[in-house]
Parts: sequence; structure tokens; C-alpha cells
Amino acid sequence: MDDKLMLMIPGPTPVPEAALLALAKHPIGHRTAEFSNMIGEVTENLKWLHQTENDVLTLNVSGTGAVEAGIINFLSPGDRILVGSNGKFGERWVEVGKAFGLNVEAITAEWGKPLDPAQFAEKLQADTNKEIKAVILTHSETSTGVLNDLATINSHVKAHGEALIIVDAVTSLGAYNVEVDVLGLDVVASGSQKGYMIPPGLGFVSVSPKAWEAYKTAKLPKYYLDLGKYRKATAKNSTPFTPPINLIVALHTTLGMMKKEGLESIFSRHERQKNATRAAIKALNLPLFAPDEYASPAITAVSVPGMEADKIRSAMKKRFDIALAGGQDHLSNKIFRIGHLGFVSDRDILSCIASLEVVLAELGYDKFTPGAGIAAAAKVFG
Amino acid sequence: MDDKLMLMIPGPTPVPEAALLALAKHPIGHRTAEFSNMIGEVTENLKWLHQTENDVLTLNVSGTGAVEAGIINFLSPGDRILVGSNGKFGERWVEVGKAFGLNVEAITAEWGKPLDPAQFAEKLQADTNKEIKAVILTHSETSTGVLNDLATINSHVKAHGEALIIVDAVTSLGAYNVEVDVLGLDVVASGSQKGYMIPPGLGFVSVSPKAWEAYKTAKLPKYYLDLGKYRKATAKNSTPFTPPINLIVALHTTLGMMKKEGLESIFSRHERQKNATRAAIKALNLPLFAPDEYASPAITAVSVPGMEADKIRSAMKKRFDIALAGGQDHLSNKIFRIGHLGFVSDRDILSCIASLEVVLAELGYDKFTPGAGIAAAAKVFG
Repeated sequence: MDDKLMLMIPGPTPVPEAALLALAKHPIGHRTAEFSNMIGEVTENLKWLHQTENDVLTLNVSGTGAVEAGIINFLSPGDRILVGSNGKFGERWVEVGKAFGLNVEAITAEWGKPLDPAQFAEKLQADTNKEIKAVILTHSETSTGVLNDLATINSHVKAHGEALIIVDAVTSLGAYNVEVDVLGLDVVASGSQKGYMIPPGLGFVSVSPKAWEAYKTAKLPKYYLDLGKYRKATAKNSTPFTPPINLIVALHTTLGMMKKEGLESIFSRHERQKNATRAAIKALNLPLFAPDEYASPAITAVSVPGMEADKIRSAMKKRFDIALAGGQDHLSNKIFRIGHLGFVSDRDILSCIASLEVVLAELGYDKFTPGAGIAAAAKVFG
Repeated sequence: MDDKLMLMIPGPTPVPEAALLALAKHPIGHRTAEFSNMIGEVTENLKWLHQTENDVLTLNVSGTGAVEAGIINFLSPGDRILVGSNGKFGERWVEVGKAFGLNVEAITAEWGKPLDPAQFAEKLQADTNKEIKAVILTHSETSTGVLNDLATINSHVKAHGEALIIVDAVTSLGAYNVEVDVLGLDVVASGSQKGYMIPPGLGFVSVSPKAWEAYKTAKLPKYYLDLGKYRKATAKNSTPFTPPINLIVALHTTLGMMKKEGLESIFSRHERQKNATRAAIKALNLPLFAPDEYASPAITAVSVPGMEADKIRSAMKKRFDIALAGGQDHLSNKIFRIGHLGFVSDRDILSCIASLEVVLAELGYDKFTPGAGIAAAAKVFG
């Protein structure tokens, strides 16, 4: 049966019909009052979503492009930075730092385990010369479903006083309560195909006054990713380069939907779906890859000892047209990942768990009572 | 009347219904066989459109991002480059070169005039030490409607032997016969909202083997714009970062339409519409901003001595819902620009000219015989 695909991956996430229809509208000119008004409203709503008075800038890039912009605009060659690395994306920011000639110190943890805030504290406290210019942290590590302890690590950065805190919030913003101003987060990067509920193509970066101060003396070369240009244009409800008009029209639609739902409801929906998914996986006697206390609101990674994860994914796709994500790099075929991020309803979680029960049984996995997964999820939802 | 907007600007251009509907499809996973097949077909068709065996890479950036990637991947700090500059975009590539610490020599001409190939020849011939690493040329200068003499300038670059030729083909590719392999163009950059007939959001860069040789020793820092990553992924029908899936599905649709129309027909359509537009403007006794021999196939800029260009644009929009582009920078309010690029039919040109006649008369301009513009265009189309 065609056109029945259900995305349960951590991006792209499902897109609401209203946003799909917005995408299909003829583009309008981007140098018009009509589009300028739309940019203005989008920017206001982005600030609302970020819970910030900081600039929030929209770029025509993927999430990686947004995080890279969030790094290179505020640093100079040779600058010392700490980068948290406990998954594919943490490792990527280490690579970005090195590609730009920064003096990168990685603070690592095993994939699936959270970063240890004490290790950040130690480095930051020892840095009495204030050489550390930035701490880069992946909040929700998409590759493992670990939610790192942003609040505690950030408190150590604040105690240091000099370093900027730069956050990859790609799969946390719009899913988890990321209080940009309350925490004083200097740079927060995210991408459109996640909590924003539209297809990939847009990246977002929020920038604090302290980060803008660093921008003034930052010497890494940039042009297309030069956030100063975006700031200047955004202040005039414009864009420095031709923007992806249709995606912005769709974003205007979904931000309106989010505002109507309200932040509290959005965050509690993600929390509830995370809890239901994890309860179900436990009831199926499959090991969760990330510990409960550090579980991402956006994605649940599941270990499958004695089985091939990709066989489960493939059967889920073939039998029920549900797309799950696989493991990346050394986790390939060892885990599968359920995305519960963005435009996902409680019903979708039930569909996914129920289908998973059927597929696991078909594949000969018998370490659960049929219906146990759904019963556990139902208890959370009830 | 709503939803009657007609875009006659040089991007975004009108988008065919089939592509709009493709945009509105639910996104699919980008790490699937289905999407991989699509990437493969898109890449093949991009090579067809570029008339090349070179790699053609697709990035999630605007046209500016594509040109920047085409520059920074092949050069090192301090490298000497020549940059043609006779309009807003030529000036932009000078800025990019400077932002990345290149030793930029601008070869300039007045806005509205073509670059003089002899000036390139002189610099290149004098460079017996082969210090010039690249020549950057805007083929169709969108800000003025001038088509620079790529073939002749390129022949001087070839005679030099060392320098790469890097071409901003943003408003020429898919509108004019840009023979990448016949001319031996090393790097050619373009953007989706132009000849490709889809909304903005994708940039394209073709890269020759000679350019890949230069890539090996090029030292400018890059990560998101690192074309080596795109090359590696494209060879496996994949993408290095999450791609703008919906735009790629739409591109798959329009490339299919272009292939069906055929290169010869696409180029002669643009040539014919350019000729009809220019004939009409002449018949209205308005000065063309670019000379006939250097007229862009994509855009016609019109001078309006004694009138305000923006009043004409505003009346065209208000009375007939036709969007024309204005002049940029010092040409603001001095010229207007008619885009005839991408999904534009002969009928659209007639609508535009006929409407322009009405508006000019309403604004009190009486230096033409009513119907003269249409008569002149009809002669070209007849």
C-alpha cells in the first residue's frame, strides 16, 4: 500500500498537513513587504520557542551547518575549547573544531552514557588563566538517545566566567524545556526537521550579547555562515541571502501551531511519549541503551542482544510501513532508535509499540508476554 | 484577487504545479534505498544539465553558499585570484575572497557593461610565475542583466594553464548553453530557484578533476561546505548531512521535465523570450541597461530616465499582480528588471509586456505607440 509511511526516526519527523500545503504554495518574492512581515513573525515566534530575548537567526543549512556557524563565528584559530563527545554528533563537533584549527579538548563518555559534569568542572576550575574560550555540548545526543546534563555543565561554565556555552540543541529544542535566558546559554543551534515539524533545510542559531562581544574579535573566516550578516538582515525583517521561501512559509505555519499548543503542553507531550516508549521497551524485556535519568525526550535507543537490529527495522518497514532509525558507526545493527519528536501523537507511539510486538514475535523473540508493551505504554497514557 | 501573483523576477522563478505537489509530499527517510535511488537519478540528470562527466554536488545552501563552496575548497590563504566584478554578485565574490584572506585582484567594469576579456588576458599573460590560482567569473550578472563573455575569458585562463576557472552560473545554468566539459570549466556553481524551476534552498557545484587536484592541497578551513564530503557521499548516492528532502523530491520532478524538453529547446526558449522582451522594450523607447551582444538570457534590466522605476514596479504589482525586480544598490529606483528564467512561457512575456504598456501609459509616459511593445514581441514569437 503506497503513501502509508510512518516516520518514527529522529528527523525528518512527520509534517502536519497544514505545513505540507504551505510548502506547496507558489513562492513569493523574498524582497517584498509580505515576506518581510512573515520573517518578522517567524523571528518573534522563534524567540518565544527559545524562551529568549537573544537574536534567533534562520539559515539555509542543515543542523550541522547551524552548529558550525554557532562555533566559527565566536572563535579564532588556536582558541582552546572543550567539546563534550559521547556520540556521533559530539564527535562531529570535535571534527569541526579541528577542521578550523581550534585547540580542541574532547571530554568523552562511552556512547550511551552521559557526559560527566565533574570532568568539565575540573578543566574549567583549573583554567585560572581563562584560556578556555568555549564549551561545546550536544544536549540530546541523537545517535544514542542520551540527554546530557546541560544545566549542571552550564553552571560550571558560568562559574568559569569567560567561556561561552555553545549548545547543539538539534533534537532537544522544541521537545525539552531549553530555557535559553534562564540558563544564560550563549549559542543554541537547532534544525527544522526536528521539533519544528517541517522538512529539513533550515538551521537556527540563537546568540547572546556575550557571544556577540566575542564575535567582534573572532577571526575564523566566514561569509555565508557569518552570523553578523544574518543579525543585520533579521533586524530589518530580511535575510542576507535568498532564503528557502517555501520552508519559511511552512515554518510560519508550524510555529503558529506550536504557539497554540503552548510550551508546557509540547514538553509534557514529549516527556509522556518518552516515558510510554521506555515503559513499553522494558515490558518487552529489551535493554534501553540510555539510562532513565539521562533519557532524551526525542529518541529512544534500544539494544537487541542476540538479534540483528536491522532485521527488526526491515520487518517494521515491510510489514507495517514504520521507519525506525538504525545504529550509527559501531552501533550499526546493534541498536534501533525510535524517534518520538515533533508531530508525533500518543496514538503513533501505540501503533509503533504494537507493531514492534508483532515483528519481534515473528522474528522468534519470545522474552515477552504478548500485549505487555502496549499494557505498559497504556499505563503511562491512561 | 488572491493567489494570482506572477513572478517575473530573477529568482525565485515560477514553479510548475508538479513540483509544488512534489514539495507537499510527506518527507521520506534520507537513509533509505528509495531516497538513495532518487539521489542517484538527480545526480545523473544534473550531469546531463551541466553537460559534464565531472562530479555535480548538491548542497543545502543558497546560490551564494554554492559559489563560496566553489571558491574556498580549492584555495589557500594568500592565494592570488582574479575576480571579475561588474555588478552586485561580482562584488560579492570579491568580498568572499577577502573574507577568506585571499589575495584578490578585481577586474572591474561599470555596472551594465561587460567585463573586458583583454584585461584578464593581460594579467594572466604577465603571470609567468603562475601565481594566479583562480579566476572567478560571474557569467550572467543578475543585478544588471549582463552576460559576460565566458568563452573568451576562459580561453585566456586555459592559455595560462595553472589557474582554475570558477564560474558563478547561478542565472545562466539551465537558461544558456553552459558547456562545462567542452569549455573545461573547473568549478560551476548554481542555485535551485533559477533555471531549475524549484524554490530556493539548494545549491549545486560541479568540480573538475583539475579542481580536485587543487583540493588536495587547499588549506582554507571548511566542514559544512567541504566538497570532499559531498563527493564521497554522492558516489554512494548519499549525502554527508541531512538533505532538504522535499526540495530534492521536487528537483527530481523538474529535472525530469527539463530532460523531456531537451537542452536545445530550453536554451532556445530563453533566447527567444530574451529577444522578445528586448524588442518590446526597444519599441517602448525605453533604454536597455545591458548591450544586445552581452544580454543575459535570464534577465532584462530596463532604464527609466525621468521616471521612478519603483513606481512602475509598484503599479505592475498593484494593477496586474506581476512582480518585477528593482535595481540594487546605486541602481535602486533607476532600473527595473524583468526575469525570464525557468518556468516562464511565451505567454508570460506577452502578459508582462502588455501590462507594462498599460502601466506606463497610466503613469504618463507617452513616448510609445500603444501596442508597439506587443507588436515587437509578437514579431519575435511569430
